[in-house]
Amino acid sequence: MTTPPLNVADVVEQVRAGDLAAVVTRAHAWEPADLADVLSALDDEERLALVQLLPAELASQALVEMPASEHAEETLAALPAHRAADIVDELDDDDAADILGGMDPEEAERILSAVEDRRDVDRLLRYDEETAGGRMTMHLIKVLTHETAGEALDSIRRQAEEVEDFYRIFVVDAAGVLRGILPLRELVVARPERPVAEIMLEPDVSVPPEMDQEAVARVLSRYNLASVPVVDAGGRLLGRITFDDVIDVVEAESTEDILRFGGTSADENIGAGWRDAVRSRLPWLALNLCTAFLAASVVYANRDLIERMTTLAALMPVIAGMGGNAGTQALAVTVRRIALGLVPKGTARRVVGKEALVGLSNGLVIGTLVALVSLLLGQGVMLGLAVFLAMTGNLLVAGVVGAFVPVLLERKGIDPAVASSIFVTTFTDICGFFFLLWLADRLLL
Amino acid sequence: MTTPPLNVADVVEQVRAGDLAAVVTRAHAWEPADLADVLSALDDEERLALVQLLPAELASQALVEMPASEHAEETLAALPAHRAADIVDELDDDDAADILGGMDPEEAERILSAVEDRRDVDRLLRYDEETAGGRMTMHLIKVLTHETAGEALDSIRRQAEEVEDFYRIFVVDAAGVLRGILPLRELVVARPERPVAEIMLEPDVSVPPEMDQEAVARVLSRYNLASVPVVDAGGRLLGRITFDDVIDVVEAESTEDILRFGGTSADENIGAGWRDAVRSRLPWLALNLCTAFLAASVVYANRDLIERMTTLAALMPVIAGMGGNAGTQALAVTVRRIALGLVPKGTARRVVGKEALVGLSNGLVIGTLVALVSLLLGQGVMLGLAVFLAMTGNLLVAGVVGAFVPVLLERKGIDPAVASSIFVTTFTDICGFFFLLWLADRLLL
Repeated sequence: MTTPPLNVADVVEQVRAGDLAAVVTRAHAWEPADLADVLSALDDEERLALVQLLPAELASQALVEMPASEHAEETLAALPAHRAADIVDELDDDDAADILGGMDPEEAERILSAVEDRRDVDRLLRYDEETAGGRMTMHLIKVLTHETAGEALDSIRRQAEEVEDFYRIFVVDAAGVLRGILPLRELVVARPERPVAEIMLEPDVSVPPEMDQEAVARVLSRYNLASVPVVDAGGRLLGRITFDDVIDVVEAESTEDILRFGGTSADENIGAGWRDAVRSRLPWLALNLCTAFLAASVVYANRDLIERMTTLAALMPVIAGMGGNAGTQALAVTVRRIALGLVPKGTARRVVGKEALVGLSNGLVIGTLVALVSLLLGQGVMLGLAVFLAMTGNLLVAGVVGAFVPVLLERKGIDPAVASSIFVTTFTDICGFFFLLWLADRLLL
Repeated sequence: MTTPPLNVADVVEQVRAGDLAAVVTRAHAWEPADLADVLSALDDEERLALVQLLPAELASQALVEMPASEHAEETLAALPAHRAADIVDELDDDDAADILGGMDPEEAERILSAVEDRRDVDRLLRYDEETAGGRMTMHLIKVLTHETAGEALDSIRRQAEEVEDFYRIFVVDAAGVLRGILPLRELVVARPERPVAEIMLEPDVSVPPEMDQEAVARVLSRYNLASVPVVDAGGRLLGRITFDDVIDVVEAESTEDILRFGGTSADENIGAGWRDAVRSRLPWLALNLCTAFLAASVVYANRDLIERMTTLAALMPVIAGMGGNAGTQALAVTVRRIALGLVPKGTARRVVGKEALVGLSNGLVIGTLVALVSLLLGQGVMLGLAVFLAMTGNLLVAGVVGAFVPVLLERKGIDPAVASSIFVTTFTDICGFFFLLWLADRLLL
């Protein structure tokens, strides 16, 4: 970027020094995203104090850009109704619906009742937040099938006062049914007397309002569209979704995948306090405690063996742990392959087969290394053999499980990222303990 | 979507049945992304056979949309030079540079020498693939500062023959220096006699050609731009990067993060064969084997203790494993918070403090559960106390380490996702073993 980035820490200090008026003056020159960074870095009270003083237009632009939407919701809820309503008035209809939809319904109603024109927001609030309907804006530019290019241009000039960015113009008939797409480019290069119906393109891709936002993101990304129309079952144009909403969705999806992969609830509000975090993570830990006891019971049942050969207690976690790591690798790669559409139907066997081969190869190498260390420590050839076989077997299992679990879940219609590493690790723990103890029992005693 | 999705498996079967001609005929009606799915689902030979028969235009559009770019590269490399050159001729300059840049330089040169006009591609190939220069296209629409709106429109009509999509028009002076941005919308609504210099906007954001592609993605996403100009140090306009490239980058970044998080090389080519996978994962496993031996040595040093109390061998992995899970949760949340810019300078202590509190709370609950189970199994009060304290301590450590490691790496300028769960797990393994064995030694014997 050519403009120097804003020093957020400096501004935060200025706010904390109480010099709010100076910050408000400076804020006029910033990009909304920069002001949003400043607001994010402040604590709740400071943020509220600054938003109180900002012009409604600046405040609305910055709240939309805040990375943690709950901060925007909390700030709006803490403002007096008329002040919050001023900010909502400045928001685009879809952004207003996003923020108000995430708030307590009574709070949202308190603010909405003070908003000047709430019809669009009310309509959008009827849709689930995470669907095409919840993401779309109703602000769009449309022309009629029977207009000429010249008439359409005049009409667009008028509508452009209201609609900030547009990338494609929608052509509808008298009943509001989407009949075509008029790329601005086609209109610009057309002679004014040509009828719109002649230069418009067939409406290529459209989405229904109830489509999940992740599916909408895939449609836009797949067909490289700057905006996609939302139409109801009768073909009537309801709104449009633009690429910037989709980038937000792709980022949110990435957050969900990483959180799930890390074994925490994908809904964990990553900007929230420690109590919320405990609430969303404790159930997963408790579930995992049960599976950990399952693995521990394999060890517990073999206490005699361990008493006779305590070296096993040191080797057990090495074999189980390496299996967990190899399984997590296979899982990460497979989850991502599925997300990118690289595992179409009929290729599941090939995917699992590849991971099995990878697991076996890595197992042979790592197994040899562990066996060598065991031999160097003077633990005897038979223990070395047991360690080698257990490690190789566990890494083979890790590859198969790490690939099979997400593929299976995907086929059953469950998001494969749910197969968080926690479950794969449990499996490799049990197998690791079992393989080593069983082999030691057979080969050594 | 209103159009029914293509049944890829059906088409694949048709190809395997040898009915290639029919598939080629049908392919004319498909979206490029759909044809790309078909190509992805085929094996190397089948894919090559189909691409040989496709018209160059269809083949080029589909190759660009293939989720695994290495498939496109291999296919192009396997074609006769003149045929590959026909396809490259049909590609946008940036897509051609992406594909050829990923190939063996000799292979790329063999194809390029048969390409009609290779100047643009050659220029783009000079930039690193993962920078703004490597991602940009040089096909853009520009007008001159001294033109009127009417002249500019005429000029755009001519240029529009060559440039497929454009979202913003760039205004340059006689020296090629970027002087302004002319949103198509402004031009459409302006009277023809107005000078361009009056209606253009200041160039808001631009990026240098050497900027990393991830940083470019953040710029577009942050400022909600459909396209951003790339300018050299002298301010001369070199090219533009559009939102669809950015969606691809965000997706690729998400792949990298998940792979790193899963403890495999972020460069792992997820469409490649098993040998490549072994090569990219084995080093990480070998590294982790060293750290696993470190943890094992804690156990090994306490063999006497375990011999006297074998129940410890069963409890050890439970405490170490739960610490690993809690640490991975803290890591996932913190990595994501950093990626979304929620951890500005000066807040590191707050972030680590929050995770410590979460770890302690979860530790108290999970520790109590484990202690209860231990008591119910008749293992005595003192062992129950040791287990409780070890679990609580390890989950507290897990929270601190899981948050501290990525924050520290980020401050040092290293991508925090590198702090893959492997390292956090090693730490919690060592602490888990040590806490339990040390406490058991103190309290019980």
